[in-house]
Amino acid sequence: MLNTLIVGASGYAGAELAAYLNRHPHMNIAALAVSAQSADAGKRLSDLHPQLKGIVDLPLQPMGDDVSELAKTVDVVFLATAHEVSHDLAPEFLAAGCVVFDLSGAYRVNQPEFYSRYYGFEHQHGDWLAKAVYGLAEWQGEALKHAQLIAVPGCYPTASQLALKPLVDGGLLNAEQWPVINAVSGVSGAGRKASLGSSFCEVSLQPYGIFTHRHQPEIAAHLGIPVIFTPHLGNFARGILATITCRLKTGVTAEDVAECYHNAYQDKPLVRLYDKGVPALKAVVGLPFCDIGFAVQGEHLIVVAAEDNLLKGAAAQAVQCANIRFGFSQTLALL
Amino acid sequence: MLNTLIVGASGYAGAELAAYLNRHPHMNIAALAVSAQSADAGKRLSDLHPQLKGIVDLPLQPMGDDVSELAKTVDVVFLATAHEVSHDLAPEFLAAGCVVFDLSGAYRVNQPEFYSRYYGFEHQHGDWLAKAVYGLAEWQGEALKHAQLIAVPGCYPTASQLALKPLVDGGLLNAEQWPVINAVSGVSGAGRKASLGSSFCEVSLQPYGIFTHRHQPEIAAHLGIPVIFTPHLGNFARGILATITCRLKTGVTAEDVAECYHNAYQDKPLVRLYDKGVPALKAVVGLPFCDIGFAVQGEHLIVVAAEDNLLKGAAAQAVQCANIRFGFSQTLALL
Amino acid sequence: MLNTLIVGASGYAGAELAAYLNRHPHMNIAALAVSAQSADAGKRLSDLHPQLKGIVDLPLQPMGDDVSELAKTVDVVFLATAHEVSHDLAPEFLAAGCVVFDLSGAYRVNQPEFYSRYYGFEHQHGDWLAKAVYGLAEWQGEALKHAQLIAVPGCYPTASQLALKPLVDGGLLNAEQWPVINAVSGVSGAGRKASLGSSFCEVSLQPYGIFTHRHQPEIAAHLGIPVIFTPHLGNFARGILATITCRLKTGVTAEDVAECYHNAYQDKPLVRLYDKGVPALKAVVGLPFCDIGFAVQGEHLIVVAAEDNLLKGAAAQAVQCANIRFGFSQTLALL
Amino acid sequence: MLNTLIVGASGYAGAELAAYLNRHPHMNIAALAVSAQSADAGKRLSDLHPQLKGIVDLPLQPMGDDVSELAKTVDVVFLATAHEVSHDLAPEFLAAGCVVFDLSGAYRVNQPEFYSRYYGFEHQHGDWLAKAVYGLAEWQGEALKHAQLIAVPGCYPTASQLALKPLVDGGLLNAEQWPVINAVSGVSGAGRKASLGSSFCEVSLQPYGIFTHRHQPEIAAHLGIPVIFTPHLGNFARGILATITCRLKTGVTAEDVAECYHNAYQDKPLVRLYDKGVPALKAVVGLPFCDIGFAVQGEHLIVVAAEDNLLKGAAAQAVQCANIRFGFSQTLALL
Repeated sequence: MLNTLIVGASGYAGAELAAYLNRHPHMNIAALAVSAQSADAGKRLSDLHPQLKGIVDLPLQPMGDDVSELAKTVDVVFLATAHEVSHDLAPEFLAAGCVVFDLSGAYRVNQPEFYSRYYGFEHQHGDWLAKAVYGLAEWQGEALKHAQLIAVPGCYPTASQLALKPLVDGGLLNAEQWPVINAVSGVSGAGRKASLGSSFCEVSLQPYGIFTHRHQPEIAAHLGIPVIFTPHLGNFARGILATITCRLKTGVTAEDVAECYHNAYQDKPLVRLYDKGVPALKAVVGLPFCDIGFAVQGEHLIVVAAEDNLLKGAAAQAVQCANIRFGFSQTLALL
Repeated sequence: MLNTLIVGASGYAGAELAAYLNRHPHMNIAALAVSAQSADAGKRLSDLHPQLKGIVDLPLQPMGDDVSELAKTVDVVFLATAHEVSHDLAPEFLAAGCVVFDLSGAYRVNQPEFYSRYYGFEHQHGDWLAKAVYGLAEWQGEALKHAQLIAVPGCYPTASQLALKPLVDGGLLNAEQWPVINAVSGVSGAGRKASLGSSFCEVSLQPYGIFTHRHQPEIAAHLGIPVIFTPHLGNFARGILATITCRLKTGVTAEDVAECYHNAYQDKPLVRLYDKGVPALKAVVGLPFCDIGFAVQGEHLIVVAAEDNLLKGAAAQAVQCANIRFGFSQTLALL
Repeated sequence: MLNTLIVGASGYAGAELAAYLNRHPHMNIAALAVSAQSADAGKRLSDLHPQLKGIVDLPLQPMGDDVSELAKTVDVVFLATAHEVSHDLAPEFLAAGCVVFDLSGAYRVNQPEFYSRYYGFEHQHGDWLAKAVYGLAEWQGEALKHAQLIAVPGCYPTASQLALKPLVDGGLLNAEQWPVINAVSGVSGAGRKASLGSSFCEVSLQPYGIFTHRHQPEIAAHLGIPVIFTPHLGNFARGILATITCRLKTGVTAEDVAECYHNAYQDKPLVRLYDKGVPALKAVVGLPFCDIGFAVQGEHLIVVAAEDNLLKGAAAQAVQCANIRFGFSQTLALL
Repeated sequence: MLNTLIVGASGYAGAELAAYLNRHPHMNIAALAVSAQSADAGKRLSDLHPQLKGIVDLPLQPMGDDVSELAKTVDVVFLATAHEVSHDLAPEFLAAGCVVFDLSGAYRVNQPEFYSRYYGFEHQHGDWLAKAVYGLAEWQGEALKHAQLIAVPGCYPTASQLALKPLVDGGLLNAEQWPVINAVSGVSGAGRKASLGSSFCEVSLQPYGIFTHRHQPEIAAHLGIPVIFTPHLGNFARGILATITCRLKTGVTAEDVAECYHNAYQDKPLVRLYDKGVPALKAVVGLPFCDIGFAVQGEHLIVVAAEDNLLKGAAAQAVQCANIRFGFSQTLALL
């Protein structure tokens, strides 16, 4: 039984992580932690997330700057924390020998200037950045088995890359035309906090961060091609639906696309391919899957990928990575 | 043309007021004001409420402590402000001769201890409290015509009283049994502000303030009978639906109830009575009406009242009161 | 391993049943059936409910009038069918020795005239009606262990009775005043079908069936006291929240109420009692619990009960009853 | 005062038309009509659309095959009917001298094979098809003034063309790359009818009609360029938001785009241009505007257009066209 610690369990992804780990047969929630400054410190997780009442009633322990004692008591750490917090905390837990799954963006892109440019801070841990394995689980199976630091990709990059990576790697796309990713995310993607923009009466479908969202360079960096990425806020709590418009190379057929996806995902239990049609958001909300469907007309290809942003886009993928890392069945505790 | 000032126009009710006044043929928006400390000071109203773009683009003027100069420039003031702010501001505008419509609770109940008990402050303006006319428009027509300070009732009290007052005044209810008011309000009732409780992912149907909500004593005080009042937050932006369960006096029939309502509201254009059935929320959202329907079985009576909390429960009723006060048609600018 | 059949799996409760049974260690889905006339016959369950893709892809078998062959192949039958269909089918499966869990209203009230009066048909199976056990799981534990026909109560009656039964049985309520049950249900309660009233643009909060809903007499019959029951349609897919206003006997305190609930439910894993506060709908959606909280002021008691109408109000309670019936842990496959 | 007839007033767009015409100073609702076979025949409009209670209580007259008598009594006809119905009815009213505003697709594209290919019927009225003026109001001002048959474009084409037409006509777009239109529509776009796909529990964000929606060729035909059009169903009742990704010609700047829009719409009161940022859906719901904003990065341009699908995408544009046709102010009765 692996002792696990969730830091940042007060948030939506943290609560989902706690629910998964609570039913995991080989992992145990040793502790839940939040920043010592958090107003939630000392509360029970179920005080914040009432659906967990009677399921995970553990207290949220205030965590100070020195985590060395805490680190000794756990084998595995999930960081569901802000980018800067993860940046600082990960090396401390790693130094103590913990295996760390970071759900923030702090270790996702191994490029010198990425963090100063898109995250507004200078990265201080280039060594760990270089060693971190990007936890896009379907594509990093081998690397994950030996990783100590796993940078779990977030919601938009997971859906976008799972949809595009087979096509890019398979050489099916016309390089002249950038894929156009239009994605709509539920409000939980903005985190659990008081915010006018996330308040019930203010939310309505709208694009944001056009040409400036930091997930664009993350997606482009990992795919190796440029993309146009336009995120939208949707009037729903959970889920992401990405509609991706691509240009195929001349001569590439719908059958080629289908075969390409089949080869990539036939043995991947958390990617569900659609033989016909494309997914609706409701197919994935509350579930750990990424669903993918597509349509072709001439050289035009439209791929639709849907996932629960808090699950395959966060907590479920983190647990999936942990399952792979420790040799368990990939879907353990997830289905 | 009456020059009007809206204080607190940044909020949801304030924006609705601005939209109504903008199309009023005899009232003119002289200025929109917010607290000098507000982060919204200096912005245009349409920056905050994009639906008003091109309709009301006036700036939100920062308003300091001394409002005497401002008061000289306007005839009519609408206070869409917090209770304490209205409490302080109203007398200043009144002293300058303005007619004041206060949408807060600061002048609604003429009882010595009401404010210390339910609002947490000592009322300093007992003279104005005594002179204020309670703006339940259908019932205060005559008094409104000569009022200088009108305390416009809010959402729950308006729906509850419009439903119950004819029955109480008509002596139709069994005094042994308190009416049970179950009401569900949209999230806009909590105001326009960053708040975890109002955030999209946190909102779901739930009761709050059971036995402790300050609208219970307001309703009871004005009706002259005790009531049980249980407010709920609903997962919608706008509207209130109140389901009220009463006991009729022995012998009172459905026809008696219908006649009672008919007598009370036959010439009141903003109360719509249902001959059969009861209203759904959608009947009133975006409209200035309070809709009322009922059903009787034996001595049991269930009345359902629905209104838009920001309109008949706030802005529309304020304009309705102003229309009555200044001798215009009651529904001017509202329909 | 028990072989189970779900009849009516195409509906929302049926799909939830399938998901539970799919992960049950001691029950196996032998077949899914729908009426031979159904347009869904022959489709896979996951064609109708895409969230089940890859989880339950079994076909919906068309079921004719003669079910004797089918009945021989299964041990347990769940009827998620219309009242009349259950009325006819249950005896056939019972005759073949199956244990039948009926989620319809067809066997819930053992009274001669109940069905002609409230359901519009004459009940033909008075013998089975008399033998049926009402599956309010927390209260029928012993009877369930030997039942062959279990009439699983639906959403409103489950929430209402779980909230009221301890108080009634404990003699805490003032008999002069009928409890007032105001309940709001999600749209899934209306079933999976094309219907103008259930269409997205038509749904808004509204009462329906005032004084005439058939769940009122069901609740009253099983509790043994009259109640006023006012159901509402809410603008959400799943869940029920019931706000119940009662009068306590003189001298009964909040502590008495708390103790009463504690005694009733302390060892019942699917009822969660709130020490303070009352439940919000979000606490139970997607979960098999009924959550109960209350507040007292003088002789007035307000109890709030929340559950997922498709789970504790349907599928989860059916599985809970089955678990009790066959000696498994009550919560097996549910948590 | 022009006597007007609305055929198909039972639908959502028809009801909005009725509300606008009811407050129009120069147009009068002479009659509301529905098919003689309609279950709504004989009901009052406000029985179907309760928000209109006390506002438009006129009955829905059953209309048979011979409309010649009816046609004599009215000057103006609005057809809010199915395509085939409009196809048949329009010539009859036109023959009687009425001015006809058709909100269906029956007269929108003057191409021989368009209707057999995309609408499934052979067009029988090529003469009227040739004479019909396409009612994209901002662009057809002069032609509208003398038209007898106006084919009012629907929701997707209106938003898409208002966004793209200035760019296309101005020659700003790179012809090599097709504009990618991703649009999300509210459920009211599917019409007022019982339908499983429109039912509350079934709706969630999802694309539909990929590469096959009939609005793609309509948009392409009127713009004169090919486009990729991917419509989505959104989980909201009203509104359309279109996110359009284009490639600019080399050298075209953001300033050029801004100037192009400015020139096109500076004197068009129902198109609101955003100096910065892009519209959210909430800016337009319930209002007759189309809001347009954009962002440029290098040669990439993203334009966002938002409108209420029932208003600028249907009823408001029809009234706007009528206002232009009869020489009234464009926004009369609309603001």
